[in-house]
Amino acid sequence: MIIVVSSKSKSDELKGLFNYIESHNVQIKQTIGETHTILGLVGDTVKIDMDAISTFPVVESVKRVQEPYKLVNRKFHEIDTVIDIGGFKIGGGNFSVIAGPCSVESHDQILEIARGVKQAGAGILRGGAFKPRSSPYAFQGLEGTGLMLLSEAKAATGMPLVSEVMSTDDIALFDDVDVIQVGARNMQNFRLLKELGKLDKPILLKRGLANTIEEWLMSAEYIMAGGNEKVILCERGIRTFETATRNTLDVSAIPIIKKLSHLPIIVDPSHSAGMSHLVEPLSLAAIAAGADGLIIEVHNNPQKALCDGAQSLNIPQFNALNAKIDKLVAFMKSL
Amino acid sequence: MIIVVSSKSKSDELKGLFNYIESHNVQIKQTIGETHTILGLVGDTVKIDMDAISTFPVVESVKRVQEPYKLVNRKFHEIDTVIDIGGFKIGGGNFSVIAGPCSVESHDQILEIARGVKQAGAGILRGGAFKPRSSPYAFQGLEGTGLMLLSEAKAATGMPLVSEVMSTDDIALFDDVDVIQVGARNMQNFRLLKELGKLDKPILLKRGLANTIEEWLMSAEYIMAGGNEKVILCERGIRTFETATRNTLDVSAIPIIKKLSHLPIIVDPSHSAGMSHLVEPLSLAAIAAGADGLIIEVHNNPQKALCDGAQSLNIPQFNALNAKIDKLVAFMKSL
Amino acid sequence: MIIVVSSKSKSDELKGLFNYIESHNVQIKQTIGETHTILGLVGDTVKIDMDAISTFPVVESVKRVQEPYKLVNRKFHEIDTVIDIGGFKIGGGNFSVIAGPCSVESHDQILEIARGVKQAGAGILRGGAFKPRSSPYAFQGLEGTGLMLLSEAKAATGMPLVSEVMSTDDIALFDDVDVIQVGARNMQNFRLLKELGKLDKPILLKRGLANTIEEWLMSAEYIMAGGNEKVILCERGIRTFETATRNTLDVSAIPIIKKLSHLPIIVDPSHSAGMSHLVEPLSLAAIAAGADGLIIEVHNNPQKALCDGAQSLNIPQFNALNAKIDKLVAFMKSL
Amino acid sequence: MIIVVSSKSKSDELKGLFNYIESHNVQIKQTIGETHTILGLVGDTVKIDMDAISTFPVVESVKRVQEPYKLVNRKFHEIDTVIDIGGFKIGGGNFSVIAGPCSVESHDQILEIARGVKQAGAGILRGGAFKPRSSPYAFQGLEGTGLMLLSEAKAATGMPLVSEVMSTDDIALFDDVDVIQVGARNMQNFRLLKELGKLDKPILLKRGLANTIEEWLMSAEYIMAGGNEKVILCERGIRTFETATRNTLDVSAIPIIKKLSHLPIIVDPSHSAGMSHLVEPLSLAAIAAGADGLIIEVHNNPQKALCDGAQSLNIPQFNALNAKIDKLVAFMKSL
Repeated sequence: MIIVVSSKSKSDELKGLFNYIESHNVQIKQTIGETHTILGLVGDTVKIDMDAISTFPVVESVKRVQEPYKLVNRKFHEIDTVIDIGGFKIGGGNFSVIAGPCSVESHDQILEIARGVKQAGAGILRGGAFKPRSSPYAFQGLEGTGLMLLSEAKAATGMPLVSEVMSTDDIALFDDVDVIQVGARNMQNFRLLKELGKLDKPILLKRGLANTIEEWLMSAEYIMAGGNEKVILCERGIRTFETATRNTLDVSAIPIIKKLSHLPIIVDPSHSAGMSHLVEPLSLAAIAAGADGLIIEVHNNPQKALCDGAQSLNIPQFNALNAKIDKLVAFMKSL
Repeated sequence: MIIVVSSKSKSDELKGLFNYIESHNVQIKQTIGETHTILGLVGDTVKIDMDAISTFPVVESVKRVQEPYKLVNRKFHEIDTVIDIGGFKIGGGNFSVIAGPCSVESHDQILEIARGVKQAGAGILRGGAFKPRSSPYAFQGLEGTGLMLLSEAKAATGMPLVSEVMSTDDIALFDDVDVIQVGARNMQNFRLLKELGKLDKPILLKRGLANTIEEWLMSAEYIMAGGNEKVILCERGIRTFETATRNTLDVSAIPIIKKLSHLPIIVDPSHSAGMSHLVEPLSLAAIAAGADGLIIEVHNNPQKALCDGAQSLNIPQFNALNAKIDKLVAFMKSL
Repeated sequence: MIIVVSSKSKSDELKGLFNYIESHNVQIKQTIGETHTILGLVGDTVKIDMDAISTFPVVESVKRVQEPYKLVNRKFHEIDTVIDIGGFKIGGGNFSVIAGPCSVESHDQILEIARGVKQAGAGILRGGAFKPRSSPYAFQGLEGTGLMLLSEAKAATGMPLVSEVMSTDDIALFDDVDVIQVGARNMQNFRLLKELGKLDKPILLKRGLANTIEEWLMSAEYIMAGGNEKVILCERGIRTFETATRNTLDVSAIPIIKKLSHLPIIVDPSHSAGMSHLVEPLSLAAIAAGADGLIIEVHNNPQKALCDGAQSLNIPQFNALNAKIDKLVAFMKSL
Repeated sequence: MIIVVSSKSKSDELKGLFNYIESHNVQIKQTIGETHTILGLVGDTVKIDMDAISTFPVVESVKRVQEPYKLVNRKFHEIDTVIDIGGFKIGGGNFSVIAGPCSVESHDQILEIARGVKQAGAGILRGGAFKPRSSPYAFQGLEGTGLMLLSEAKAATGMPLVSEVMSTDDIALFDDVDVIQVGARNMQNFRLLKELGKLDKPILLKRGLANTIEEWLMSAEYIMAGGNEKVILCERGIRTFETATRNTLDVSAIPIIKKLSHLPIIVDPSHSAGMSHLVEPLSLAAIAAGADGLIIEVHNNPQKALCDGAQSLNIPQFNALNAKIDKLVAFMKSL
């Protein structure tokens, strides 16, 4: 940790600060300049609160030298984490496609979609049973029944499942779900993260719509700190001033995450843009930037979808896209 | 609802769209222009999904005419809602100050602060027992014990309590808490909102750090739709590109909310800025813009605070500020 | 300047960095920690390029200790700058109101408005002759003729003038204008700033719609570096994700600027919100937060205004508002 | 244009609005609903000011049906515009790479870089002579001399030139420059756009750091409205809350622009990220999303670059990248 103080500071003003720091068993090394003095703190500064340091009137600024995350940090874990989902791998050079509807609506719907996306080449089935909707009057998902219908689709097709949990109360219902998704709005639902940290099951952690990459990694750290090392990060667009798209896909997050962390990162092109005609270019861009997978919304009848129809591909569209995805993934490996 | 389609659309392309709309028992009135045709939908359009409309290829854009919220809407409830918190009122011309530490740390700490802020004129005591922290390694609050210490402070001073809930699991512990706070990161934790909608107790709903005013009102609608009409909105700064402050206080939200809704709105100047020297100017600005109250972080020893010390006032600072607040509130009524 | 390098760096990797730094006649003081080494640079680091430092692979991060601005910096100029505009003062405890139409449209229009706002108590007249419009098909201002009409209004009422310049080519036409305004879109038109730095006339520098406070101060530094010390800063709302208002007034910028700089700061409540009903609450909030003045759009017939009618007050509305402004300014001095 | 008014509006309140609209020779068609009445305007609404409509108290909202741009609109110009730069084409399936230093520093520097990037396969040379720098104390470019050095590099290598203009005063100096660049900070310098509209020379129009896609297209419309049809759009990252990158590359802008406009769009991966290690993934992502070209910063010695060294590739790095670019461009055509 580095603390910058004014060189004009009087010694009694500095004394309080020094006492505070030294009470944490940390050494202070001073570099005195003309206008400012730099205090370099040597030792274990993890427990020193930057905020508390800022309250001393002599302090002009404080800067952490170390990243605030450890378990997700590539510095302490150089090798890529690979997540195996029923035989489909994500990370470490492995690429998988997750596809399915925004929400599970009926036995026939989920089965038709599951069979369609499987035939098109998707490995893993997604489907929402609990739906976070901004309006209390919108369809909220089939909940427990939705999870049962997903299990039926899994039994019929052999596809592993991804589904979103919204509350700690429901975790017990996700036994047959292979990957539990944390939605963007719950990225900092810390209580939920803590509970998921106790499981031995992959967690798909979506980035919050206005969360920094550092905050996102800190939320992954919550899960790993609980003992669950199987975290997949998912970039799904961030909120900006631009209104031409629902969100702005932050494609740079892919190489940044690869540098900072060993965890795999996939992209959700459907929520990023909010429009079906953007799903293809954003999927291809994500692959070219190094993503480890994609999660794509597909519906057998987007016009009758109970949510997010505007961003869903129909099955033939997904089929055409997935052929391109396969080819580009193979090409990128050869590049 | 208004739908814009191209005037070049062929009749069979339009047919599917018309059938879809008419299946909802809604009438279509067309206005044909040179390049575009406008479809005005007359009837109850609440159940028509804008998203589904967008999936029809002929549709260029869709626009809702009515606000998506009803219970919080001033149009259907002209009179200001007034919330009574142990005799202290918020809304409808009533102004109250809530003050206290970011987190409850000990019996002596909360008692000293409670007595200090009460003497300075604050009506209501705040204190965090469950703390949402971005790092799993940071102090997470005293949890149940924290709530007990708050109860002791309430018993000793008579001050009603505000404290934050982080999970549906804990609601039962909040019996003695007078106002339950929903933090910014949980503004769209819809399951939590639904549970709080079942209570007969005021809910302080903070605005999410990247949520629009409309989304915020929709979250209030969740609580009211459950039957709980006692909602207080709290603006606490939004996330922008500016880094000189922790968040950007959206002072315009105050008059906007006053126009759109009958619910009271208060301001949190401490989290907005993240720096204690900004608490005074932002508090005064909030009052001048029409806020119904303030929630201010106060600590007996900010340098030793276990969280958010940098933005906390000490007791003498709060005392000086509260005197100004009182005068400005009185002045604004006379203006 | 502080440079953080990994403690694992090899000496030959560090050598290149050290040679580079020492070639600038700057001393390096090292603080060696377990995982990182901190290099504190002592001496005149102004000419060392942070960017160049970042290119050395051993460097993890670089941080400037000193602000990058000098002339606008309160540290080197403790006393508030006061700008005198034809007898009306801004800064150092002095407050003035600038009012007038978005654009000058005709002799009668500007004269009627000038007389109206003067009678209501405004000291200074604003009016646009050169208008930056996002569409090439929108009214672009009366240009030279507009400035002539402003001069006529000045002659008739004695009010000093504020008007916006859009290009270095036109500066010569602004002889009779008392304060030259730089619009938000030109805040980083550095060539224009340099030319305005050569004048002996106050410059009203609006904040760019997505510029940080530091960038804004650097633009003021451009003007002062040219020799013109008469700079007035104007906060006019920043661009955020919120769409309920045209821009988001950053009211915190007022106390932040007061701390960092000696320059006066005024607020434009009309452009901040883009809606006339928000002008009053935002004006009062700005005063309460410590602003040195306001610039308000007023039109004799907002519905026929050639630009920005939606945010303009009519003359009776301004008259009512200005009475409140006067009272609040006086009250704040007494607080 | 669509205007929404309350169904409770009294007829005399509506009268003023109707008179205003009808004075523009536009027909009004009403759709009366339970709570709102929709007014559809038929005829040429281009000259009707949405702002003026908003000032009528009965109006709840106004919406344009047509895009505000014509010449850049794909609806009126279906075929892709192709720009030829000394034999290198951009748009309509043609892809070109522009490379070179942030700023021209010396004869030897620009010549070495020009030869290096040409050998690596770049077609077009970029180099800044006039540099927009946020600090008045930073290197401002060699100006006229810089342009002369660029001409020498062009003579020696045959490469066409791209260079940025900062002021209308300097346009005459750009005779030998093949493509004139408008920087992000000047995207809404409307006077400059108007002057460039008079030339018969391609203009590279960078997106402003906080400008919407619609505003960007309007700025292109300014140039085309002046008679110059040779506009190349350049996405270079937008400003968001994320600080891990200098800007956030808006990769979705590529397919959006392709849909809305016939103009070509290229990407600047160097400014988007501000870090050299991100240039490769962002370049590849841009190609996969459909970009028509790239503009990349390359320096023979990034550590000694007078500006933006941190984001510059050295010549061997560019050589390696360009080989991948060529392969991916070819692959995408086959996809």
